[in-house]
Amino acid sequence: MTSSFQEQKSPKKRIILTGDRPTGPLHLGHYAGSLQNRILYQQEHTQFVMIADAQALTDNAAHPEKVRENLFEVALDYLAVGIDPNKTTILIQSMIPPLFELTAYYLNLVTWNRLKHNPTVKEEIKLRKFGEAIPAGFMVYPVSQAADITAFKADLVPVGADQIPMIEQTNEIVRHFNHTYNKEVLIKTEALLPKVSRLPGIDGQAKMSKSLGNAIFLSDPSDVVAKKVRSMYTDPAHLRIEDPGKVEGNPVFTYLDLFDPDKESLSELKAHYQRGGLGDVAVKKRLLEVLDAFLTPIRERRMHFAKDRRTVMQILFQGTEKALEVASKTLKEVKEAMTIFYTERT
Amino acid sequence: MTSSFQEQKSPKKRIILTGDRPTGPLHLGHYAGSLQNRILYQQEHTQFVMIADAQALTDNAAHPEKVRENLFEVALDYLAVGIDPNKTTILIQSMIPPLFELTAYYLNLVTWNRLKHNPTVKEEIKLRKFGEAIPAGFMVYPVSQAADITAFKADLVPVGADQIPMIEQTNEIVRHFNHTYNKEVLIKTEALLPKVSRLPGIDGQAKMSKSLGNAIFLSDPSDVVAKKVRSMYTDPAHLRIEDPGKVEGNPVFTYLDLFDPDKESLSELKAHYQRGGLGDVAVKKRLLEVLDAFLTPIRERRMHFAKDRRTVMQILFQGTEKALEVASKTLKEVKEAMTIFYTERT
Repeated sequence: MTSSFQEQKSPKKRIILTGDRPTGPLHLGHYAGSLQNRILYQQEHTQFVMIADAQALTDNAAHPEKVRENLFEVALDYLAVGIDPNKTTILIQSMIPPLFELTAYYLNLVTWNRLKHNPTVKEEIKLRKFGEAIPAGFMVYPVSQAADITAFKADLVPVGADQIPMIEQTNEIVRHFNHTYNKEVLIKTEALLPKVSRLPGIDGQAKMSKSLGNAIFLSDPSDVVAKKVRSMYTDPAHLRIEDPGKVEGNPVFTYLDLFDPDKESLSELKAHYQRGGLGDVAVKKRLLEVLDAFLTPIRERRMHFAKDRRTVMQILFQGTEKALEVASKTLKEVKEAMTIFYTERT
Repeated sequence: MTSSFQEQKSPKKRIILTGDRPTGPLHLGHYAGSLQNRILYQQEHTQFVMIADAQALTDNAAHPEKVRENLFEVALDYLAVGIDPNKTTILIQSMIPPLFELTAYYLNLVTWNRLKHNPTVKEEIKLRKFGEAIPAGFMVYPVSQAADITAFKADLVPVGADQIPMIEQTNEIVRHFNHTYNKEVLIKTEALLPKVSRLPGIDGQAKMSKSLGNAIFLSDPSDVVAKKVRSMYTDPAHLRIEDPGKVEGNPVFTYLDLFDPDKESLSELKAHYQRGGLGDVAVKKRLLEVLDAFLTPIRERRMHFAKDRRTVMQILFQGTEKALEVASKTLKEVKEAMTIFYTERT
């Protein structure tokens, strides 16, 4: 089910589908958990990165403008961090009609009860506080994800461990479809779990998230990053400079581990902090330097693309066109297997 | 909610959506309940007749070949009875991607609970004996019907009384959509209830139906019709020719009422039957003559088209293309209202 792909010396070329719901700009957590991997994967693999605007609407139907605005922001984030449209196909979900058609046909192969008992969906329903008013579109989104994955014949899907039930749902549909129509049309997929565990928020909570208000965004200006870093949670027991401080569970060091390229001086810094005599102000200053070095080129590329909306949209449209071709081919195979691909002769 | 349209002297021009699930050839019950109306409506109104193959798959996912075969049979039935492709747009549902896209967006506006409590769906689930294995696609089909109706901006939908909850569901979506996106994009629709109540089966059951095995098909050859008429249920108390017979609830007379153009001699026949002295064999002979006169030209046109599969498919493709244009226009308006119709400038 899950892949040890990252540990393999020379993995075979895979087809990867990944993406984001455009409900907010991307932050360091996205970079650590997925964007940095995408920059690697695009060198070796066939990678589709989907801006899942239609999926975002399943729980934002009353606020489409939020989805609309963030579509462009997310695209800027992608281009700014180095997702290369010549290597990665970036696509807009709502512009690929075959995804909706596949969803409809797959819904016939999944029972109502099965949808109701999907653990990921149950968990997300709780988080969203829908009460009795769960949108039907939200309940069926695992099937729409199966459509996304299978449309591009993705055999590798980078997801968090909490998303494994979604991959299982996809593979159930793949098995059920191929069995029912007696043809190996759809491809099984594998979850690719991240090496890096979740990036904590600046408040020390386990997860950096826009809605928790504890995120450093890739688009944050330097002064905003400075303010956020200064306010960061550290070791609450580290009250005086001369006290020994804890490195584990201290998000300042977690961020340094990820973003500081100078591992040797980072080791020294940690040792100093642990034995005492190093204040939080000093380590935060170091983190700010590191983050600025990391974010400055991203910020510059972002501003470059932000000024040229037309070019960004063209990049998205070109990727979408390419993705549409692939998805249309899969849909044709699916309809042929179901014997409902009609021609004048049939 | 329902329309008295048929009673109006000069009704305004309406947009009508109607159609059939291609799960079997059409029979006299379809003619009485809908086909004859369509032949009338096409003179005055804008009429779309949809072969609902995608909907048929919601409870026939394991038997797509049944849908596939009957798509052509239903098309032949349409052309044979006089549905004129120059006046009526005949379309294949699965070939209109916007219908699937609209369904997806409407699903976000309908709650899971609402779907569960749709009375028509509940009734149909009982009939189909799904048990615990209700296909999710079947549960959501009222929303897919709302997509069909609104895609063509149909303001009149001929349905049976049992389907009124489906029309209510559509209008709920129309209200919810227009309200949420603050624009009158979607059009409310009305149920058009049939003047004629259901045609009974040849076995006297209330409904003629393929699955009950009590139907006379439009495509039945003359000898098959003869055999079916001879076996027809009549008045069970009418044992001897000299006995008085009942006309009410006697399907032979119900059929004569509908298909015998000579109302005067039919009156005499009924009177004779009621006072006694007229045997079932004689009235069945009369019915057979009437049905043969009715079915012979239909049969001939059917055979003519059956020999030319290519022309029939071309007719369907041309209608579908026209329908696709209309549905694409609606989808564009829907996406614009939701602010997710993207262009290079936006």
